[in-house]
Amino acid sequence: MLDREQDSIGPLPVAAVAGWDLEADVVVVGLGAAGACAVLGAVEAGAEVLALEAAGAGGGTSAMSGGLIYLGGGTPLQKACGFEDSAEDMFRFLMAASGPDPDRAKVRTYCDGSVAHYQWLVDIGVPFKPAFFPEPGLEPPTDDGLVYSGGEDAFPFDRLARPAPRAHKPQHRHAAGRFLMDRLLAAVEGSAARIETDVRVLRLVVGPDDRVVGVVARRAGRDLQIGARRGVVLCAGGFVHNDEMVQRHSPLVARCSLRLGNDFDDGRAIRMAQALGAAVTRMDAAEVAVPITPPRKLVAGILVNGQGQRFINEDTYYGRVGQEILFRQGGEAYLIVDESLYEVTRAGLGASWVAETAAELGTEIGLPPGSLSATLDLYNRHAADGHDPVFHKAAPFVRPLEGPLGAYDLRVTNPACFYATFTLGGLVTSVDGEVGHVDGRAIPGLFAAGRTTSGVAASGYASGISLGDGTLFGRRAGRAAASP
Amino acid sequence: MLDREQDSIGPLPVAAVAGWDLEADVVVVGLGAAGACAVLGAVEAGAEVLALEAAGAGGGTSAMSGGLIYLGGGTPLQKACGFEDSAEDMFRFLMAASGPDPDRAKVRTYCDGSVAHYQWLVDIGVPFKPAFFPEPGLEPPTDDGLVYSGGEDAFPFDRLARPAPRAHKPQHRHAAGRFLMDRLLAAVEGSAARIETDVRVLRLVVGPDDRVVGVVARRAGRDLQIGARRGVVLCAGGFVHNDEMVQRHSPLVARCSLRLGNDFDDGRAIRMAQALGAAVTRMDAAEVAVPITPPRKLVAGILVNGQGQRFINEDTYYGRVGQEILFRQGGEAYLIVDESLYEVTRAGLGASWVAETAAELGTEIGLPPGSLSATLDLYNRHAADGHDPVFHKAAPFVRPLEGPLGAYDLRVTNPACFYATFTLGGLVTSVDGEVGHVDGRAIPGLFAAGRTTSGVAASGYASGISLGDGTLFGRRAGRAAASP
Repeated sequence: MLDREQDSIGPLPVAAVAGWDLEADVVVVGLGAAGACAVLGAVEAGAEVLALEAAGAGGGTSAMSGGLIYLGGGTPLQKACGFEDSAEDMFRFLMAASGPDPDRAKVRTYCDGSVAHYQWLVDIGVPFKPAFFPEPGLEPPTDDGLVYSGGEDAFPFDRLARPAPRAHKPQHRHAAGRFLMDRLLAAVEGSAARIETDVRVLRLVVGPDDRVVGVVARRAGRDLQIGARRGVVLCAGGFVHNDEMVQRHSPLVARCSLRLGNDFDDGRAIRMAQALGAAVTRMDAAEVAVPITPPRKLVAGILVNGQGQRFINEDTYYGRVGQEILFRQGGEAYLIVDESLYEVTRAGLGASWVAETAAELGTEIGLPPGSLSATLDLYNRHAADGHDPVFHKAAPFVRPLEGPLGAYDLRVTNPACFYATFTLGGLVTSVDGEVGHVDGRAIPGLFAAGRTTSGVAASGYASGISLGDGTLFGRRAGRAAASP
Repeated sequence: MLDREQDSIGPLPVAAVAGWDLEADVVVVGLGAAGACAVLGAVEAGAEVLALEAAGAGGGTSAMSGGLIYLGGGTPLQKACGFEDSAEDMFRFLMAASGPDPDRAKVRTYCDGSVAHYQWLVDIGVPFKPAFFPEPGLEPPTDDGLVYSGGEDAFPFDRLARPAPRAHKPQHRHAAGRFLMDRLLAAVEGSAARIETDVRVLRLVVGPDDRVVGVVARRAGRDLQIGARRGVVLCAGGFVHNDEMVQRHSPLVARCSLRLGNDFDDGRAIRMAQALGAAVTRMDAAEVAVPITPPRKLVAGILVNGQGQRFINEDTYYGRVGQEILFRQGGEAYLIVDESLYEVTRAGLGASWVAETAAELGTEIGLPPGSLSATLDLYNRHAADGHDPVFHKAAPFVRPLEGPLGAYDLRVTNPACFYATFTLGGLVTSVDGEVGHVDGRAIPGLFAAGRTTSGVAASGYASGISLGDGTLFGRRAGRAAASP
């Protein structure tokens, strides 16, 4: 059982509502990236919109992010940087990288709508500088606009689809999440929508036939009953800061050092909908980033698990590396480098062990005798020929590791090693944000987007997917909710 | 979204019920092992009980099983076979083997109540022969009563708790599930409970304050409204035969060749409760058995993944091996043996490749060049000294593999290799079977047990846990539902 909620989370029958304190056609819950775009979508569709934000201002977890937006299929920015891309290549990549078995309809809608969505973002005031930043992974420290962010050019994806960089960074130095949200919120403020902050939504109000017709919210200790003539859109974040939900659905996430989100990522919106019979999916899924780079040269080292074995191509997306370590390698991994590669990572992690030989290093770490030597022997033998037929790391990062060796401690139990995580599971929604009931129908009047839902990144991940999925499907959900 | 249900699954308000077609203190839904014991528990507690079974007779998936019941802590059968055990050793094993982070209260209740539960089963007519069967894993082909079934005597569990065999098999040759159910159903039939078969429960009936007060069921095309004065107990199986739910929560399970269950393992009871706001947990978890034994001698071979690497101690429980292959090794594994070990498995699987050397065998299979040789070199080097410091297989199964080698194809894509699976996730329940709402309270009047719930085996598994958990917590749920 969960710790019992202080306030009931179950639906309130509309018969118990004496009158609405506030009313609009569409009520949007949460003003992160998904919520802001839901507001804009609903306004575009001609609705009177009321946005409710629990914090003192909009932004949410989106404003704490790097600001990367995963877009492709041949955006003007991709073209300006000299990259070819197609919706089909983007689709093939995402179906392979977001699985197993991501929602095909969502991935298709996302890829087919990506170029138009880029243009919409530009039109509402989000600028992108047409410059490619060559180091993949983290958002660029420059204001360059395009970067690889999902291992598109690494095995196995480079063989499944033509690689293209797809992380679009709004034109701003360093992390651009706050900048992006400032632009989205400026567009919201410039629209006809009404914004109420410091308003925490507690439960849904349902009419006959279980149609959602409003919400109960609290501001300064007072409950407000807020009517939604056409629909409610839940864009209230995920559940990574709800310990009980994490324990219930994805207990390994609780072992990570850094839960990306804010206090309002407590899954309450998911549970408000569940109390109405809403279906959830992939509640075990989570992004887990272990930033072994920058510097990029470190991927020329090898990653080994607790048995001294390699388990992944080191040049892939570090979010993929993190998921692999946490979910499939028992939370235990080490990065092995030689002197030519050694450098403290930008995240501040250095070598915990050094030794003259692989055998000694394995002993220092406490790996099974002979295992690290056997792994390095095989790796070096192939590397001398310039290739890695076991895990298919790209040739530029493949060369023998020689001389004294060092090992970085990437275990989840090492507090100095960041494991940055957030949840990917949530409500089942259609491509128009309709929330699905466990009986298969859509719950009338209820919509959702962003991390409150399970999206394009069903289980796998690439940096920029959350803002891409949240903004594109947020706008679609707002438009659908506004449709009479 | 799910394919839309033909019949509504949402709760029916009691105000819509003109009168009950049938009525009892406690209504038990499903007559597998959990349901039968829920009936007996409720009758013991003095309730008038009505049992509803969707099929033409009771038995359910329990009757299709091997009949093993996981019990311990020093049962008379364990003692008669010369094994010492304690509730504490059983607890330590299950906390480690059922994780990550199984429900501590459930595991504690299960272990502390195990000896008494054994006696209760004997008293109601389930016989056990005090004889130990030495080959672990599958139910014994003899009528012997005790067998290892969870890798208790293998790494790492042998170091965490004193090993003891805990799978108790009712005295019957070969699979004993049908025999067990005959005895449990005879006890039900000998009780004061009323049994109705061919009755399919469609939805719950709720009174004021969302208390569950009955069910709507269908028999021969006619809907019955059935009142439950004290409580409803859902014991209607898991969801492995619901394609949409499997796809939604654990898509890799859909790739397995053999889904253990029957057509009524469609998750409807889980969804009926979810429609009322019930919480679910560990919906991604599933048991996956890849029976590489018997014969037991095959565990002296080595299991390798698609990179030619070992990944587990081969002498552990084959259900653990199956979970590891499916969930953490990409569904790809091979069993490598030499001529002295070679034998077709009892499941009918023989070698798909043979070769004179490891290098040739690796090439035949299509493993990366040099990888199988490197793995075998390291294994043989240690095995020559009689130990396996990398994966800790027990010494009796450790010796070098020499001469011509053969490889069994254990890939999930090989239709000749059984992947036998069923779901472990389900409703959140207390140790008394109360169903938890997403707001943390118990839903009044609603109880559940068996595979409709998430139980002791939260994610990991040992053979016999489903019947052990279902019978023990089924009885407790029945007793609790009967309490006014």
